[in-house]
Amino acid sequence: MSAILLAMTGAGWNPAQWQARFSALAPRREVRIWPDRVGDPAEIGYVCAWKPPPGLFAQFPHLRAIFSLGAGVDHLTGDPLLPAVPLVRVVDRDLTARMTEHVVLHVLLHHRRLRLYERQQRERVWHEHAQPAASEVAVGILGLGVLGRDAAEVLARIGFRVAGFGRTEKSVPGIETFHGQAGLDAFLARTEILACLLPHTPATEGILNLTLLRKLKHDGALGGAYLINVGRGRLQVDADILAALEEGTLAGASLDVFPTEPLPRASPLWAHPNVVITPHNAAVSDPRALAENVLTQIERFERGLPLEHVVDRAAGY
Amino acid sequence: MSAILLAMTGAGWNPAQWQARFSALAPRREVRIWPDRVGDPAEIGYVCAWKPPPGLFAQFPHLRAIFSLGAGVDHLTGDPLLPAVPLVRVVDRDLTARMTEHVVLHVLLHHRRLRLYERQQRERVWHEHAQPAASEVAVGILGLGVLGRDAAEVLARIGFRVAGFGRTEKSVPGIETFHGQAGLDAFLARTEILACLLPHTPATEGILNLTLLRKLKHDGALGGAYLINVGRGRLQVDADILAALEEGTLAGASLDVFPTEPLPRASPLWAHPNVVITPHNAAVSDPRALAENVLTQIERFERGLPLEHVVDRAAGY
Repeated sequence: MSAILLAMTGAGWNPAQWQARFSALAPRREVRIWPDRVGDPAEIGYVCAWKPPPGLFAQFPHLRAIFSLGAGVDHLTGDPLLPAVPLVRVVDRDLTARMTEHVVLHVLLHHRRLRLYERQQRERVWHEHAQPAASEVAVGILGLGVLGRDAAEVLARIGFRVAGFGRTEKSVPGIETFHGQAGLDAFLARTEILACLLPHTPATEGILNLTLLRKLKHDGALGGAYLINVGRGRLQVDADILAALEEGTLAGASLDVFPTEPLPRASPLWAHPNVVITPHNAAVSDPRALAENVLTQIERFERGLPLEHVVDRAAGY
Repeated sequence: MSAILLAMTGAGWNPAQWQARFSALAPRREVRIWPDRVGDPAEIGYVCAWKPPPGLFAQFPHLRAIFSLGAGVDHLTGDPLLPAVPLVRVVDRDLTARMTEHVVLHVLLHHRRLRLYERQQRERVWHEHAQPAASEVAVGILGLGVLGRDAAEVLARIGFRVAGFGRTEKSVPGIETFHGQAGLDAFLARTEILACLLPHTPATEGILNLTLLRKLKHDGALGGAYLINVGRGRLQVDADILAALEEGTLAGASLDVFPTEPLPRASPLWAHPNVVITPHNAAVSDPRALAENVLTQIERFERGLPLEHVVDRAAGY
């Protein structure tokens, strides 16, 4: 039976915890940990990876599939020696639900002017501001994958006017959808709160720039435009977001990801009164749910069934 | 045709705006404003009221119905001279949706530890904390009227383990429900985030006290209990909430209503780091939606159909 290798770098990962969970679910499956307990490279059939070093996968002659432990795969696709085995994105109900929690919280936070009321609380001021209903406010979901569609569905249930933009034409019940370059401009022109859930690819790098933000609707029910980025840090240009806040193009932002993480202490984004910063924790992989997800996929695969959520390498996600 | 009288006291009401909206929707209906433009009291058939002076209604010999302009009617039921005409609560889709926005925002805010991350942001600290999924967290809705049921439904869709308590036995699809005194204790014992949407009646006055708060689940996935009160201020005992925060019975609270409003500047609640204060704006009556709602009811009533949402005076709501 092919062994599973866990190869994770970066803070916050606990490979021993992941190994314990895999072993609890599939006691007969061997699970090893990179870099110290790889054993015979020829026995590695699967790698569960987060930001592994380039060239790692090329060392395993019998590699059958690679699983990315987050929703993104940009940490893998840059490897010039990446073998031609299926590259599988994690699409997990738990991860999706956590992302929706985050997106809904931050849409409501800007919609209901929470930062303004917090400032009033600090000053002990009891004062109510005019408040549009969600049904008057246009939310736009940039990226209509599994995560974007789930967030769109909940926001529509709450009452927001929700639209979505995808690279290709997609149909989502109850949601107005846009695609293509002309579609993007029309989508932005009707959107007051933009939630970005795009993957990071050469085509999306730096897409959240001043030119794009200026296309948002600024005279809607909220009287300003808001950005929520939970996609990838390299989608956004920090200096442009600051400039957009400065010139009034943005009234506020919730940023969970940044081109440089952790966000450097010197960044002026930390201190901006209308910017909400979270430490890339919008949707954190839960070892319990994801280990089960990966094992189910491997069992299906070994019974001859196709893997689900395999990355289209040409599209980059 | 019976005239409508608008009788509102307190800050934030604009009777002229309400009158304009009624007139736009029903140009032939006479709409008058208390106290200066009441005209002949015998012509008043309906009063739309918010905190009118006691005894006002007894002046109108041909009064046919009274409409409360908020979800509560406790501002009317204390009038010893209240005539025996139908007393109608406002139940409006717009008001319900706004309340759900507020409840969902504040449940997510505590669940995702927003205040903690805001403190970290002020200190420019990039640090992630363990985060349970919504599916591990028990939310309890105290009060299963139209508002409570709608909030429960959205919270369940987001993934929370939602239960509800009502005075009488109720069935809500997908929601575990409790009723009666024994049911209340069982409901509290499984609830980590308690959202209170009860009406104010003699039976509910001061119900949010230390004894009740100590019955909440403190060792759940969140590691503490949270209170959200959007019902009425007189349901809550401010000193008990402070004591509960002090002794750790509550880990945090979102309070929109208070026994004394505006909340006095001297209240220690303003400065508590884990208390979120809003100025009774969870769900504000929108003249556009409510005027239409009231007129529809009057038209139905005059065609001989029963009024909807008539208050049970014995129950007090």
